[in-house]
Amino acid sequence: MARRSATPGVPTHPAFSTRHIGVRSQDLATVLEQIGVSSLEDLASRVVPDGLPVLGTVERTPPSAEDGGLSEPQAVAALRELAALNDPHTEMIGQGYHPCHTPAVIVRDVLSNPAWTTSYTPYQAEISQGRLEAQLLFQTLVSDLTGLPVACASLLDEATAVAEAVTLMARAARRGRDRAVVLDSGLHPQCLEVAVARCEPLGIRTVVLPAQEVAEPGLLDGEPLLGAVLAHTTTRGAVQDLAPLVAAVHARGGLVAVDADPLALTVLTEPGAVGADIAVGSAQRLGVPLFFGGPHAGFMAVTEALQRQVPGRLVGVSHDAEGTEALRLALQTREQHIRRERATSNICTAQALLAVVSAFYAVHHGPEGLRSIAHGVHATAARIAAGLRGAGIGLEHDAFFDTLSVTLPGGAAAAVARAERAGYNLRLLDEDHVGLSTNETTTEADAAAVLDALAPGAVLGRAEAAQAFALPDAQERTSPFLTHPSFHLHRSEAAMVRFLRRLSDRDLALDRTMIPLGSCTLKLNAAVESAVWLDPGLAGVHPYAPAPQTRGWRRMFSQLADRLTRLTGYDRCSLQPASGAQGELAGLLAIRGYLRARGQGHRDLCLVPASAHGTNAASAAGAGLSVAVVATAADGSIDVDDLRAKLSEHGERVAAIMLTYPSTHGVFEPQVTQVADLVHEAGGQVYIDGANHNALTGLLRPGDLGGDVSHLNLHKTFAIPHGGGGPGVGPVVAKAHLAAYLPSGPSGSAAPEDGDPDEGFEGPAVMGTRFGSAGVMPLAWTYLALLDDVDLREVSLTAIANANYVSRALADSYPTLYTDAAGFVAHECILDLRPVTQATGVTAEDVAKRLIDYGLHAPTLSFPVAGTLMAEPTESEPLAELDRFIAAMRSIRAEIDEVASGSVAVEDSVLRRAPHTLAQVAADTWDRPYSRSQAAFPLAGMERDKYFPPVTRIDNAWGDRNLMCTCPAPSAYEITDETTNRTTGADVSVDARKDAR
Amino acid sequence: MARRSATPGVPTHPAFSTRHIGVRSQDLATVLEQIGVSSLEDLASRVVPDGLPVLGTVERTPPSAEDGGLSEPQAVAALRELAALNDPHTEMIGQGYHPCHTPAVIVRDVLSNPAWTTSYTPYQAEISQGRLEAQLLFQTLVSDLTGLPVACASLLDEATAVAEAVTLMARAARRGRDRAVVLDSGLHPQCLEVAVARCEPLGIRTVVLPAQEVAEPGLLDGEPLLGAVLAHTTTRGAVQDLAPLVAAVHARGGLVAVDADPLALTVLTEPGAVGADIAVGSAQRLGVPLFFGGPHAGFMAVTEALQRQVPGRLVGVSHDAEGTEALRLALQTREQHIRRERATSNICTAQALLAVVSAFYAVHHGPEGLRSIAHGVHATAARIAAGLRGAGIGLEHDAFFDTLSVTLPGGAAAAVARAERAGYNLRLLDEDHVGLSTNETTTEADAAAVLDALAPGAVLGRAEAAQAFALPDAQERTSPFLTHPSFHLHRSEAAMVRFLRRLSDRDLALDRTMIPLGSCTLKLNAAVESAVWLDPGLAGVHPYAPAPQTRGWRRMFSQLADRLTRLTGYDRCSLQPASGAQGELAGLLAIRGYLRARGQGHRDLCLVPASAHGTNAASAAGAGLSVAVVATAADGSIDVDDLRAKLSEHGERVAAIMLTYPSTHGVFEPQVTQVADLVHEAGGQVYIDGANHNALTGLLRPGDLGGDVSHLNLHKTFAIPHGGGGPGVGPVVAKAHLAAYLPSGPSGSAAPEDGDPDEGFEGPAVMGTRFGSAGVMPLAWTYLALLDDVDLREVSLTAIANANYVSRALADSYPTLYTDAAGFVAHECILDLRPVTQATGVTAEDVAKRLIDYGLHAPTLSFPVAGTLMAEPTESEPLAELDRFIAAMRSIRAEIDEVASGSVAVEDSVLRRAPHTLAQVAADTWDRPYSRSQAAFPLAGMERDKYFPPVTRIDNAWGDRNLMCTCPAPSAYEITDETTNRTTGADVSVDARKDAR
Repeated sequence: MARRSATPGVPTHPAFSTRHIGVRSQDLATVLEQIGVSSLEDLASRVVPDGLPVLGTVERTPPSAEDGGLSEPQAVAALRELAALNDPHTEMIGQGYHPCHTPAVIVRDVLSNPAWTTSYTPYQAEISQGRLEAQLLFQTLVSDLTGLPVACASLLDEATAVAEAVTLMARAARRGRDRAVVLDSGLHPQCLEVAVARCEPLGIRTVVLPAQEVAEPGLLDGEPLLGAVLAHTTTRGAVQDLAPLVAAVHARGGLVAVDADPLALTVLTEPGAVGADIAVGSAQRLGVPLFFGGPHAGFMAVTEALQRQVPGRLVGVSHDAEGTEALRLALQTREQHIRRERATSNICTAQALLAVVSAFYAVHHGPEGLRSIAHGVHATAARIAAGLRGAGIGLEHDAFFDTLSVTLPGGAAAAVARAERAGYNLRLLDEDHVGLSTNETTTEADAAAVLDALAPGAVLGRAEAAQAFALPDAQERTSPFLTHPSFHLHRSEAAMVRFLRRLSDRDLALDRTMIPLGSCTLKLNAAVESAVWLDPGLAGVHPYAPAPQTRGWRRMFSQLADRLTRLTGYDRCSLQPASGAQGELAGLLAIRGYLRARGQGHRDLCLVPASAHGTNAASAAGAGLSVAVVATAADGSIDVDDLRAKLSEHGERVAAIMLTYPSTHGVFEPQVTQVADLVHEAGGQVYIDGANHNALTGLLRPGDLGGDVSHLNLHKTFAIPHGGGGPGVGPVVAKAHLAAYLPSGPSGSAAPEDGDPDEGFEGPAVMGTRFGSAGVMPLAWTYLALLDDVDLREVSLTAIANANYVSRALADSYPTLYTDAAGFVAHECILDLRPVTQATGVTAEDVAKRLIDYGLHAPTLSFPVAGTLMAEPTESEPLAELDRFIAAMRSIRAEIDEVASGSVAVEDSVLRRAPHTLAQVAADTWDRPYSRSQAAFPLAGMERDKYFPPVTRIDNAWGDRNLMCTCPAPSAYEITDETTNRTTGADVSVDARKDAR
Repeated sequence: MARRSATPGVPTHPAFSTRHIGVRSQDLATVLEQIGVSSLEDLASRVVPDGLPVLGTVERTPPSAEDGGLSEPQAVAALRELAALNDPHTEMIGQGYHPCHTPAVIVRDVLSNPAWTTSYTPYQAEISQGRLEAQLLFQTLVSDLTGLPVACASLLDEATAVAEAVTLMARAARRGRDRAVVLDSGLHPQCLEVAVARCEPLGIRTVVLPAQEVAEPGLLDGEPLLGAVLAHTTTRGAVQDLAPLVAAVHARGGLVAVDADPLALTVLTEPGAVGADIAVGSAQRLGVPLFFGGPHAGFMAVTEALQRQVPGRLVGVSHDAEGTEALRLALQTREQHIRRERATSNICTAQALLAVVSAFYAVHHGPEGLRSIAHGVHATAARIAAGLRGAGIGLEHDAFFDTLSVTLPGGAAAAVARAERAGYNLRLLDEDHVGLSTNETTTEADAAAVLDALAPGAVLGRAEAAQAFALPDAQERTSPFLTHPSFHLHRSEAAMVRFLRRLSDRDLALDRTMIPLGSCTLKLNAAVESAVWLDPGLAGVHPYAPAPQTRGWRRMFSQLADRLTRLTGYDRCSLQPASGAQGELAGLLAIRGYLRARGQGHRDLCLVPASAHGTNAASAAGAGLSVAVVATAADGSIDVDDLRAKLSEHGERVAAIMLTYPSTHGVFEPQVTQVADLVHEAGGQVYIDGANHNALTGLLRPGDLGGDVSHLNLHKTFAIPHGGGGPGVGPVVAKAHLAAYLPSGPSGSAAPEDGDPDEGFEGPAVMGTRFGSAGVMPLAWTYLALLDDVDLREVSLTAIANANYVSRALADSYPTLYTDAAGFVAHECILDLRPVTQATGVTAEDVAKRLIDYGLHAPTLSFPVAGTLMAEPTESEPLAELDRFIAAMRSIRAEIDEVASGSVAVEDSVLRRAPHTLAQVAADTWDRPYSRSQAAFPLAGMERDKYFPPVTRIDNAWGDRNLMCTCPAPSAYEITDETTNRTTGADVSVDARKDAR
């Protein structure tokens, strides 16, 4: 199918769609027959409700990067051509983004390994012990570096981490939420901008002041503070003496967050040691490329007192049903999908993959390696400083880590230009000062070259002269860090390779099984899509590099934004948001900005259907909107009568409605345009959540359905891999009237040029960089360069066909909860387990865990309806894999029937005791009412390639009651004297800990 | 250790040696204590016999690409700089080498995946089922394409495959070996050169003639023929009508080999269909980059009558102890290490990894995809031909597949020059003809550009005009191929990714375990070493590209050759041989050439110690030398008295001695220089085999020990991964007097320029290209750029220390067979199992298979001494891994003791019944005298990350008696009607076949 007609005489390859779409031509007939349609177009005509503005079929356009249809080699060549339009300079701008060396073993075995890149968020903890351990290492790294006991598994970037720190202060405050938060003017300007912008709709007062002023008694007339965010080292490079400032803020009743550079933390006093309550920052320079701004892992660590307030995901230690130590996401009840409108952080997808890279970077280098790098970085800066001093040039401050502010009265711009001509990017701080940051990659030649640009003819200071700029004794770090054995055992690459393999083997990802997650669209992430993203011409560019150096990046973004707007029926596209949830926030902020500009600022209410993803409500809250829930009718669709009632009740307060289309119930609701009309008539705006866009592309456009704005998930719908929980890209597409309110570039960014996708955007930045997760956008760009609009329509229709195939095939085992009148679902189906549960006690969770024994990842559990499983097979799965899932689900149904018949008690059943580990099924004793083979090999032919989870069912509640979110203390590993001076055989991971207990 | 002293002010990273060497500083003390030495240098002084010219310790030199010591990023940058010196053109030279697209999924999941790249030759078949299946797919591919039933697992390249075909004819002939072999002058010139040169020392007569002449009755006065090698399509592009030619050769009693292009075989009549006995060729264009000449898989297929004569490895189907179908290397008794001096092919390491890539390329495209590519390639050539015709330009022949010979009287050179200026490389056939080959990557723009260079202003013919050049009906292929389901089930990438993962998960490679193979040096293959090799600037260059385009390649080779000569104490280095065995052949041919030039051509005898690797004898035979064995003394060293006797006995016949140093008995023999002197005095040359060079680097140099010539294994000693049995690189290093006799570049190669490593070499080519396995040499170059001479000495001494550590730690369980007088071994130790076998019946094989249950790859089994295991831990293994091996071996010793005590019969023991599969240990019934946990988890803590082999012990003899060397016929897979029109759940690999039987 979709074979491109051959240009005569030119070698013909099958279209990429035949690689991406799993169900091949002869198999498609089987699928269509099962669901009773004659063709995909017949399916389209039946599944899309009458009266909706469905797109007509179109002719293929000639293949092009802009319109899709390129072959794999053509797409790679086109991307390389774009990359070649960039002009990367040696980046010494700093401001939170520093070049570093990603160890080759991590590039190959993690960033280029589908076992790591294509895994899902570890909600199913039993099949996620490898990545959970890696994320626990990240939390341990952050906790150790900051000196604070509890760290989350990552945030979107440094700027949002500062914003989250401030909102945490407000959340933690039981009273006095109207007090001001002081933001250190020494923070990076993009952090200040994002934090101030995030606080404004929430009504949190912020005051930007030099850090020292928080210690002045007269500050803000001495009133109590909600808190302060202080810079560990300032954006202009000064090392700050934080202890007295922390004390002053505490004395005023406030909390203190410290924003710190992770490399500086290896040699300068950690925030925990000076009493800080919170520490934030970016882990980017720990092994992650610049990526023109992202994705990078933001981090946050807090005191124990604040541990239940931490935003984002938190990996914690618990145990499984056999008492074996096991990891899982802790305190999930804090998350937005549970708390919904009561949530105040909407963070969901974060930067799991990048956090893992930083964790492994720390494993690779160890504490001594990180300190060595830090000392080197500082020493290089000191030699430049000494050279400047030798040339009679002053510095704004002599106590620095890696960043100099060079005083060149009236000459700063000229010096920056000289450096640029020499191939170096420095930072123009003001007309009299140039900023310069050294980093892990800075060579002596680099140092000499930038010195020469700043002070022509000056020579680098020698080590003795550099001693004048030694780190201040009072701020030198004295405490140990990364004492856990995992940061010591894998220094040789042979050990590292095996450690990485061992962890990844414990997990299930798309390279071993379909992941049929309703509402998440885990489709193929083709290798060709990630063939180029790590090339230095793309990944090596600083987010604040001058515009002439970034032409390739921006042309790519223009093409990407243009295609996305055309596919969605909108006018403009902001690529800044780094997750779907952040896209929602940006979209709602655009609505808010638009309404206020039109004198409609009193509209402060967002309508959300009962079936909405919890993030919707949390994002509305983040945009300062209250939430009102619109009821769902018996058939799962929006209750239009209730909508009318709500509109009538709230009247002028209605700012917007947030819809998901197809709905989270997995159906095409016929009344969507009516709903949009009603809200528009009431003066509100219509937000259409793009979570389910994989059912629409090429078929229906949210902009045609009445949407004013939508976000998309490039990391799902557009084939960027999920990375175990990020990176994400959540672009906002909007009608023209909202364009001016979409996110603009934060401070430091080059101004948009003609043709840039964000030209004319004037809304507040939601990320620290103009294009958010720029680094992974080449993957989505490639996906769209490979597939033309005809292919994309086939993608959507195949996804819908596959969901209906699964739904029909399982109908006699598990009824699909919601269908349209003709019995069709959209691209996912909710399998209703509630009757089974009621009759037998077997829960949806039991089924989800039992699927692990079949080597399958479970569908979405209990969302949007408790007690159900929502399955979204996507277009990428081959028929054989769909059939494997169906066979497993049917076999499980037979197991349920055994319970139903009373022959097995549910507590003793193979379902409740699932998943089964190797240790169990190969144990010497076996005393279960079912056989070993039923436990381990429930279908024929599983013995050879069987996957076993390393732990059995995990006790989540125990872990939440006994919260432990870093690697257990090394004392747990102490073995005998004989072995203390040598490494032990296994990596000291949770299994070894089990033995040691 | 080996931390590079920091240049003041420049960031310090630990030296690469700390990544490469597994035993870190604190662990080294443990190792040294165990073996009773105070330091590595103390070890050096004790282990190297007195009187040998041991190198002194040296000071570190400043880091440089030439001398080593670069950091990882520096080495990558330096390699990129070299690559940038190349000037790749669009390659349309053809002559057996064609650009193609390697699918991104294969680049990522195979070529960049240590599970595939770092595996060993599958001698231990139970832990090699994945790569054996991949190699079986390659054999099936070759068999199907050629129409001949038995194909080997790969040969070194097309030219050597032609040579092997001729020697096979001689081997197969029971009489009449003195008859001539006709070589079609339409073969590629490099194939003719290599074949003729290989035949000459073997006394095989060759005659080069146009193919048509074999049908002439008067040819060679009508005498019977040994055989003929015919071109399927000629090097100038003509499609040949082979049937009458085959019949004519058969009529004269000869065998026929056909040399064919694999893509042409998808559309032109296959050799088997016209009665050919043998088919050979290169699989390169099936997904493997040009690599400046190699490595690529040569192929050979033969009739059933010849199946036991096939050179190289042969994967075959057998079954395991439970009757499950299982794969293993078939007919191993043919191999040189068994047949020794009676062998006539010395092929050993071949091109397993590249064969696997070609097999997966065929899986990815399937037969319809390959035919589509072939038709496209032909159609493009036809459009160019039509354009030429339109411009009034003639062709040498109108029946072609992909290659045109364009008639430009007197204008060929100018046309080739015009094309080169336009960015295209064509082939200058003679002053009147230009050769041009289209390929999978040729675009319409490319076709138009080369047409314009040939005939300025001409326009491409349209499809109708191109019809004049349709493939000749009589030669169109009509038979199906690739009918096996594996070539049909994985067309979508989701299916392909999982297929690749499933196969690789069945195997053990260096990413999961040490592979302590004595005499094979399976050390760390660091990720950084393969960071650049696939870059188009290196991998995209044609081997016969003009010299100005290949400056980077040649500078790299010069640096590599220079460093190797300095490290070995020789004067010159040939990088051409593509395996150790081929290096031996090239070295011996150099000796032969030298002796003949000095009037010593009567010297035709090569002395080989009894302990020598079998390849030595086979290589000597290949060089036309007879072999005489020198006895081994009781202590394992060469028996000098016997040597004197042999020298005296053979006198003037002695051409050379081949030594391995340290000996294959794993000891530094003190008499090595005495041996060399004795042979020199007798007028012979000294060949020192570099198989064990990992014990020498930086410590002793074979050139200083009296060697005249040596080969090295870059794929072992110098860190190129083993690829499951190749690629290899076997450079020859030699003293100056042998230089003129080292291999020169074959026809088509650019002439050596000043500074090229092969300048002045005039010996016959042993490979089809000047630099053999050029493509993987960047890996060895990087290894040497990372490690300086001080590091390399540490590498060798650590390898020696580790071997002694293992030997001492296991002394009470398994005595080491040979040590020096002080009890030291070199870099490997022979663990003597014979007393155990005698006492208990437990064999060395039992121990090797039982190690699989411990998750370990066995040491070398029964070489060089039957009934022993030779363990070489190398320097790269961390102490924890050495200890894991020791713990396993000790635990096995305890299991042996149970047999010894009589409590368990050996037949029922956990040893004899090893390895254990998951299906066994998790079966519902268990009736063995040992427990499941003893079978599966013999050491503590194995449950979580346990590796299971997919089959239990394989019956080798059964498979050899019932030889089956392609995937079983699809009929074995027929299931029910219901499923015939759809794919089945599992890949149809051996496990599925088991079910279907």
